[in-house]
Amino acid sequence: MIHLAVIGAGYWGPNLIRNFSQVPGARVAYVCDLDAAKLAPLASQYPTLTTTRDYNEALNDPKVDAVVIATPVSTHRKLALDALRAGKHVLVEKPLAGTSETAREIADCARESERVLMVGHTFIYNPAVTKVKEMIERGMLGEIYYIDSSRVNLGLHQFDINVIWDLAPHDVSIILYWLGKRPLRVSARGNSYTQDQIEDVAFITLEFADKVMAHIHVSWMSPAKLRRTTVVGSKQMVVYDDLEAMEKVKLYDSGVETLKLNQETRAELQRIYRVGDVLSPRLDVVEPLRVECAHFVECIRDGKIPRTNGEAGVAVVQVLEAATQSMREGGRTIDLTPVPSPDVKGTSGEGRLRDAD
Amino acid sequence: MIHLAVIGAGYWGPNLIRNFSQVPGARVAYVCDLDAAKLAPLASQYPTLTTTRDYNEALNDPKVDAVVIATPVSTHRKLALDALRAGKHVLVEKPLAGTSETAREIADCARESERVLMVGHTFIYNPAVTKVKEMIERGMLGEIYYIDSSRVNLGLHQFDINVIWDLAPHDVSIILYWLGKRPLRVSARGNSYTQDQIEDVAFITLEFADKVMAHIHVSWMSPAKLRRTTVVGSKQMVVYDDLEAMEKVKLYDSGVETLKLNQETRAELQRIYRVGDVLSPRLDVVEPLRVECAHFVECIRDGKIPRTNGEAGVAVVQVLEAATQSMREGGRTIDLTPVPSPDVKGTSGEGRLRDAD
Amino acid sequence: MIHLAVIGAGYWGPNLIRNFSQVPGARVAYVCDLDAAKLAPLASQYPTLTTTRDYNEALNDPKVDAVVIATPVSTHRKLALDALRAGKHVLVEKPLAGTSETAREIADCARESERVLMVGHTFIYNPAVTKVKEMIERGMLGEIYYIDSSRVNLGLHQFDINVIWDLAPHDVSIILYWLGKRPLRVSARGNSYTQDQIEDVAFITLEFADKVMAHIHVSWMSPAKLRRTTVVGSKQMVVYDDLEAMEKVKLYDSGVETLKLNQETRAELQRIYRVGDVLSPRLDVVEPLRVECAHFVECIRDGKIPRTNGEAGVAVVQVLEAATQSMREGGRTIDLTPVPSPDVKGTSGEGRLRDAD
Amino acid sequence: MIHLAVIGAGYWGPNLIRNFSQVPGARVAYVCDLDAAKLAPLASQYPTLTTTRDYNEALNDPKVDAVVIATPVSTHRKLALDALRAGKHVLVEKPLAGTSETAREIADCARESERVLMVGHTFIYNPAVTKVKEMIERGMLGEIYYIDSSRVNLGLHQFDINVIWDLAPHDVSIILYWLGKRPLRVSARGNSYTQDQIEDVAFITLEFADKVMAHIHVSWMSPAKLRRTTVVGSKQMVVYDDLEAMEKVKLYDSGVETLKLNQETRAELQRIYRVGDVLSPRLDVVEPLRVECAHFVECIRDGKIPRTNGEAGVAVVQVLEAATQSMREGGRTIDLTPVPSPDVKGTSGEGRLRDAD
Repeated sequence: MIHLAVIGAGYWGPNLIRNFSQVPGARVAYVCDLDAAKLAPLASQYPTLTTTRDYNEALNDPKVDAVVIATPVSTHRKLALDALRAGKHVLVEKPLAGTSETAREIADCARESERVLMVGHTFIYNPAVTKVKEMIERGMLGEIYYIDSSRVNLGLHQFDINVIWDLAPHDVSIILYWLGKRPLRVSARGNSYTQDQIEDVAFITLEFADKVMAHIHVSWMSPAKLRRTTVVGSKQMVVYDDLEAMEKVKLYDSGVETLKLNQETRAELQRIYRVGDVLSPRLDVVEPLRVECAHFVECIRDGKIPRTNGEAGVAVVQVLEAATQSMREGGRTIDLTPVPSPDVKGTSGEGRLRDAD
Repeated sequence: MIHLAVIGAGYWGPNLIRNFSQVPGARVAYVCDLDAAKLAPLASQYPTLTTTRDYNEALNDPKVDAVVIATPVSTHRKLALDALRAGKHVLVEKPLAGTSETAREIADCARESERVLMVGHTFIYNPAVTKVKEMIERGMLGEIYYIDSSRVNLGLHQFDINVIWDLAPHDVSIILYWLGKRPLRVSARGNSYTQDQIEDVAFITLEFADKVMAHIHVSWMSPAKLRRTTVVGSKQMVVYDDLEAMEKVKLYDSGVETLKLNQETRAELQRIYRVGDVLSPRLDVVEPLRVECAHFVECIRDGKIPRTNGEAGVAVVQVLEAATQSMREGGRTIDLTPVPSPDVKGTSGEGRLRDAD
Repeated sequence: MIHLAVIGAGYWGPNLIRNFSQVPGARVAYVCDLDAAKLAPLASQYPTLTTTRDYNEALNDPKVDAVVIATPVSTHRKLALDALRAGKHVLVEKPLAGTSETAREIADCARESERVLMVGHTFIYNPAVTKVKEMIERGMLGEIYYIDSSRVNLGLHQFDINVIWDLAPHDVSIILYWLGKRPLRVSARGNSYTQDQIEDVAFITLEFADKVMAHIHVSWMSPAKLRRTTVVGSKQMVVYDDLEAMEKVKLYDSGVETLKLNQETRAELQRIYRVGDVLSPRLDVVEPLRVECAHFVECIRDGKIPRTNGEAGVAVVQVLEAATQSMREGGRTIDLTPVPSPDVKGTSGEGRLRDAD
Repeated sequence: MIHLAVIGAGYWGPNLIRNFSQVPGARVAYVCDLDAAKLAPLASQYPTLTTTRDYNEALNDPKVDAVVIATPVSTHRKLALDALRAGKHVLVEKPLAGTSETAREIADCARESERVLMVGHTFIYNPAVTKVKEMIERGMLGEIYYIDSSRVNLGLHQFDINVIWDLAPHDVSIILYWLGKRPLRVSARGNSYTQDQIEDVAFITLEFADKVMAHIHVSWMSPAKLRRTTVVGSKQMVVYDDLEAMEKVKLYDSGVETLKLNQETRAELQRIYRVGDVLSPRLDVVEPLRVECAHFVECIRDGKIPRTNGEAGVAVVQVLEAATQSMREGGRTIDLTPVPSPDVKGTSGEGRLRDAD
């Protein structure tokens, strides 16, 4: 039995408690929050749960195996490092940290502590996202050319972070997961219209090796909600529309080929368009957060590396940070220094763990 | 009666002849094409039409008032200058020219000749586009914050021009028309996937004064067709979806306001979201090209400046040129030198003409 | 303070308890169910709630003002009559009863007891439905011609009642509420495909005075879910699509007029089609069940007649019964005997109560 | 070379001429219309075409193999019989005739004359409709349970025929083609709202053997256009939406099974819902009328029976006639007398011809 302590009983904490309560082999032992008023309803709903305003109580309990951090991003560093140093495995809500330096520090600490570090990029546990990943891995799309994603709606603005840090973690984590690689360069354009300094609209470009490109449009200022991502490959193409009730993923057996009929003259080039069937595969009906919680427990129990491990969390933060910097410097291209392999044990980022997927 | 000569009997020429034939007060007298095979069916369909392989025949006929140029863009310069110098009014298909320098030369020639020069940006005569313009002019949207436009589909690739020159003229002309001003800076990212040098995907950013921004996504490589433009204003917002059969324009009575409850502390900021009615106004049922043709005839007859005059055509070409340059230089921001007022008579660009709208 | 007892702790009971708990001036005092296992979680969630397996305990408590019945339809008669005779006001889940005779008996008992009887036709408290009612009452649609409604999806089949009794109560209650009158004739066609006797597909026609017609298609066998109702009036038309996230109600300023240019000859008839703006009005964001619960409490407190009173419940049951009968007799038209005015106090159906709306 | 004469140069005639002109092996030799003004533009457009106001000129020309009748339905009988008796093959626009008796007479005449008789039910040559037929024939849907079709829009009213005769021929011909059998019973409900006697809204039910049912809703009074047909089978289900630009046909791998766990008790019944992939197959990009024209020419040349032969045309007219009768008698069920096998040569209806499909 894995015993967990959840820190943070605000909006997301209760969802985590509810889902972990349904994972076989897991038990939520503690919930911690500075605000006692948030603890009371949880105490009555989960009679076996210990509630406390001091998270050290949980860290000092040797029965506790893992800590789940669902607090504002500014507190992630202290809480995560304390927990890892207390020998606990850690699940941190996204984004891992507010700067890539801090994110790096947390990930390094996890590796040194040989503890599981997982970041709550819930979309990576969404059946639609994993179905597209499966299509890519099986080569169904061919070589990926580019990805275009729109995540726009009216509100809800944040007062402390801009729209990139609020909405783009989803797209960035999905895109890096699908492509299985990290961008070389990031740039962004955007503006703040309703509040100084807090940009509410942004257009982000990620450039990868081999001319692969991704574009992300995020906005809190759009009248009609969009959650739409297109993946264009050399063989087939995918549209993932999270607002569709039934057909969230569509695989288009469509493509373009350029035939060079004659090497000498351009005039003899010919393009062939293939417009074929559209397949919308059945998706599992599961709550992504439930899958995420079960995955965390499984990684602890079996010594596996989470799909959204610390390195994945660092990579997302690097992109968000670079995009914000680029946006504030008028769209200047930011080169991402390649993340060095942390040590000889592999590129996975966690010490003795092995890949979960 | 205005007598016209149409040069170019390829794909678009016959549409122009058909539409001009239905404009009261206009008569198509000549159609010119180097390829006699293209002239034959037009001759049989329009018995009063003179067909010729030599356009000078039309230029030399004093009865001809105006010339309509529907030929490849590389020929626009010679044909337009010849026609203007022969004292003819000119309608040129979009884009006006392949470089801003040439576009400038044609527009200057029109001004000096005191002839009407109009560019065939047909979307500016589309009832949906003019309805949105009307909403903006009447202040219904408030201050415009940003515009986001997607024009993507599978094919049809061009072999001689990239996707920016092929698809973006529509979005650029619409955006400049709606905003009534020109961008200060242009940048773009894009790639060619199916043919060297001919980019088939691009993301373009236009920056205007006062933080107004426009973003355009064009692609020949997208599995599902999109023709969708969002205009976000401080009071209301519009989505124009050209693929909708009935409700192409939707006006959202939605917005965001930030109240500063207390000047000292950020914590007391409060945002108010307004989500109100959605109105889809009735649009006139007319063929935009028909409106365009009638507008050209009206401008000639009444000495008015066309809505899509030479200066508008130059502005579009400048943006397309800058976007392509930026894309090829890795997204570098290109400053657009402000277009000097051509002469003391005004910024309109045509000598003695007065504004049509 | 109105004290309530909820009978039935299955699927719907907990929703009723949750919503009544949020209505000012109301308190749920009892929850009754034969199955103790269903009572336990409610006891821990609502510490002040008395749970019991014997509903007479609640009926005998003079503090209890009203009883809410959320049990299978076969039990409605006994429970409702017992509660009314014990002097309690009653809210019964839809449908009021399994036969019109029983429904009549319950409604009569309520009138004689001078108690509030309300039926849980929740859609009548849905903001989209009340917005359309408001449009009709304000004469915006003109004279109503016909209503067409589709409520189809895959499953969930019931084993004891057919698709008419399962899905059509929604459409029938909405249509009677909008039209404010009862049908003269009912007919239906349908079949059972996956289980004997339990029809899973039906097409129902309601005929009202003055050629007004309504058609309802219900199915458990349709691959794509539909919740779509069209109201055609002489002036304007409405489509209410409950699956639309944002624009559930659309008012079309469209219509047809036939001009008789000449009384003698048909040839001079001319039809004029008006296709105008489409307006999607903002709807209140409320949970319909919450509005229903507040309405019940208000009717008890202020002696008002509920919008979905016993007579409305009887009328719905009469239509469902007639439709099933017609379907089983090959679509024979069933005349509905006009419901006699229950007594001299009015047509409202409840003794001393006055209309709530 | 098959030589054709087209009678009727109104709305549809020119489409027929244009399409037949593109069919290899066919030549339109004559076009006939009482109105000389309609002939003139066709003469100039098709220089080799003989135009005449007297169709007997074409019937008397031994070079003419076939006659295409695109005139009002009231003239079909005389024109078709004259043409067949003159030894010509005949293509008649839908519906074949205004009464089933007349339709029968024309079909019988064709059989006796051993000429090809084809009815212009163009939808049967639509790639979406033939794709669904192919799915049904290959057993992909299993046993067909029911079909539900909506064909509604605002206008265009006819002054001489009701909405059943105007719109339902499409649905009826499609449904009979897909099912490959004829209904036993027909009933309909409907009303006329904007003009006496000419019903503008109708709901039609077709009952076939083995509990198979079809329902058709047609209206000229609906604010939003619908062209949507659902086919529910025991294995899979199809939605054909003709207004979809790209995905007109969707095959849902969904279904319901009822397991009888215990033969004794109902309580142990269990339903299993299968919700699987959705496949939208690629459809050929062809003009259905072009396919229809080519099919007619092929049938003449190769002595084949058209897919929409005289018997198919008779069957459609019988349903339309019965539906109108039922509607005018308050929805009374009309039994369709089974169509007798016309002669010993087979059920196909044409004398020496063999099945085309």
